[in-house]
Amino acid sequence: MIYADNAATTRMSEKAIHVMTQVLQETWGNPSSLYEHGQRAKTVLENARGEIAALIGAEAREITFTSGGSEADNQAIRTAAEIGRSKGKKHIISTAFEHHAVLHTLERLKKEGFEITLLDVHENGLVVPSEVEAAIRDDTCLVTVMYANNEIGTVQPIREIGEICRRKNVLFHTDAVQAVGHLPINVADEPIDMLSASAHKFHGPKGVGFLYCRRGIRLVPLIEGGAQEHGRRAGTENVPGIAAMAAALRESCEKMPENAAHLIRMRDRLIAGLSAIPHCALNGDAEKRLPGNVSFCFEGIEGESLLLMLDDMGIQASSGSACTSGSLDPSHVLLAIGRVHDVAHGSLRLTLGEDITEEQVDEIIGAVKEVVTCLRGFSPVWRDLTSGKKPFIL
Amino acid sequence: MIYADNAATTRMSEKAIHVMTQVLQETWGNPSSLYEHGQRAKTVLENARGEIAALIGAEAREITFTSGGSEADNQAIRTAAEIGRSKGKKHIISTAFEHHAVLHTLERLKKEGFEITLLDVHENGLVVPSEVEAAIRDDTCLVTVMYANNEIGTVQPIREIGEICRRKNVLFHTDAVQAVGHLPINVADEPIDMLSASAHKFHGPKGVGFLYCRRGIRLVPLIEGGAQEHGRRAGTENVPGIAAMAAALRESCEKMPENAAHLIRMRDRLIAGLSAIPHCALNGDAEKRLPGNVSFCFEGIEGESLLLMLDDMGIQASSGSACTSGSLDPSHVLLAIGRVHDVAHGSLRLTLGEDITEEQVDEIIGAVKEVVTCLRGFSPVWRDLTSGKKPFIL
Repeated sequence: MIYADNAATTRMSEKAIHVMTQVLQETWGNPSSLYEHGQRAKTVLENARGEIAALIGAEAREITFTSGGSEADNQAIRTAAEIGRSKGKKHIISTAFEHHAVLHTLERLKKEGFEITLLDVHENGLVVPSEVEAAIRDDTCLVTVMYANNEIGTVQPIREIGEICRRKNVLFHTDAVQAVGHLPINVADEPIDMLSASAHKFHGPKGVGFLYCRRGIRLVPLIEGGAQEHGRRAGTENVPGIAAMAAALRESCEKMPENAAHLIRMRDRLIAGLSAIPHCALNGDAEKRLPGNVSFCFEGIEGESLLLMLDDMGIQASSGSACTSGSLDPSHVLLAIGRVHDVAHGSLRLTLGEDITEEQVDEIIGAVKEVVTCLRGFSPVWRDLTSGKKPFIL
Repeated sequence: MIYADNAATTRMSEKAIHVMTQVLQETWGNPSSLYEHGQRAKTVLENARGEIAALIGAEAREITFTSGGSEADNQAIRTAAEIGRSKGKKHIISTAFEHHAVLHTLERLKKEGFEITLLDVHENGLVVPSEVEAAIRDDTCLVTVMYANNEIGTVQPIREIGEICRRKNVLFHTDAVQAVGHLPINVADEPIDMLSASAHKFHGPKGVGFLYCRRGIRLVPLIEGGAQEHGRRAGTENVPGIAAMAAALRESCEKMPENAAHLIRMRDRLIAGLSAIPHCALNGDAEKRLPGNVSFCFEGIEGESLLLMLDDMGIQASSGSACTSGSLDPSHVLLAIGRVHDVAHGSLRLTLGEDITEEQVDEIIGAVKEVVTCLRGFSPVWRDLTSGKKPFIL
């Protein structure tokens, strides 16, 4: 089996599993309890916070643990909205290809009277900083742009966007769920006010993530209750999950230079191989993309059939985001970069893991070529295209 | 060491740890992924949902997984508030001794224009159903009363309250975080519309819980994003945690009759032993209380010193809720049952685990007697009381 869907979720690292089971078994106290057993859990919790903070250039107090990336996105945006509302600023800027955790939160805010501007991401899947600047108004309270897109892997000009926001005195949040643990991130150096991350995207456990929030910005709790997380997030802390997340992030960051170099080689080999298939196109910029992300559209086929046949051949991939699979609508990300419906339906996302080999990449190339040819053989759309009844788009 | 703080958190059962690590290692796919590896995770997820539903008499589709009890409480109350708001009903009834996950959510709603009635819980720590009925108005959209109190362990007349709500056509939510896995609960039989639970209170993992929501009530998401949990709760599902929660709940429910009988014997032995200490009082009704809960106030001492000395003697207990420890304010629960500040400060909560022995109970009794005597020896308040300068309250 070749697992090529690491953007959906990653396999937990041995080290992270080890830390998790150890804490489950040994340090199961409630970190809010005053006795020694509780305080040991507190120590594990705070060590994890310190470690995660250090790994992204933050201070420990700037890290709030959440149940994952979606919660962190929701809380960051709601916080900025509350701050904005209190100042009469009710305009938010984002992009058309954000994760639904961002887009749906913005839709809710729209119903509450906020005005939302969604920027274009152009054919290469990149936001243009000058367009962010042009969109900022006196009543803009937040710019939220994802660090790297979860479907097409394009890495955004976060520093430039952040600098514009800082200059214009507008809060800047980035959904960095796909970037943390995969790209070097240093919030001490990058002008980011809030940043969301999810452990299971970097070989940590599911059900845990964190929100970085720059000192001086008062987070509004999404979950009200006890005084945990300095009142920013109620509920007994998921100490084993948090400790495992810290272990996973440390490992990912330590191995990042080596992993990234390998992944970029494998990614580019895969892109080159798949590009040989007629009437296909890489989605998103070829260089400004995540080390392990390969996303293609193939004309004349259905992405879902492609996936099922690849699965039969032992290759696990996706058409786009796992969070929206099952939906019959084409990906909003692919539509945002200008793919028409028909083409967007024939999408394939391969997100490689660090242990991928050259042989496996070649196996994927062979399998995709075979499956695409086979599916096109059955496809009435492909017949129309090749017979000239319909024009090729790609 | 004697761990007597099971209301704060419980040790995970061997079985739950086993299930969790197995899923962490083997079924780490994303349940939204269409390929076989993802679908296996989906099966684990849905089996857990079915199992949990069956254990509380619900249907699978009525169970929504959350990151814990606080999130479930927040979502249930916010849902009822949204439904109420849409009908112009903005009055909510609750009690003065709810968990802060309920009280703080209600405070937020108050700021949004809701009117909140907090019922008295009287000296025995029990809500009187006729008082719920009397408080219901035409614009009441929700009654939320906890199943069993987290500090004093009193078990509320949930069925009677639920019946009143049903008759009056008002939604009824219960925070059952302390009750699930400890008391028999059957929502097919009990008139409960929404019920919150947390896995780590019944030997499951931290960071996971569930919200039961009766069919026909449309939950409003607290976390927006992907289409997980039928659009009721976004974010990749914590499959290992959820599977472990189901295993823990099954075990707790299977062993409940046996465990409860043992715990009630141990609890009553502990209550009898501690009652021999002069100038103390049991908090809450002696019979309508959780099998393992013992809560006392001792006059003339500080609860925190009591805890630290017990910790030194190998007994881990708490003064009240772990969620509020560190706070210098006396417990809102003890104030709600009419304890004055001075007395409320001298509180001790001992929540026994199923493996507690008679010898350990006697050890606790001996230790508490010793520590209370010792602390009273140093206490200026105790000197004032015994010299007649101040009148005894207890």
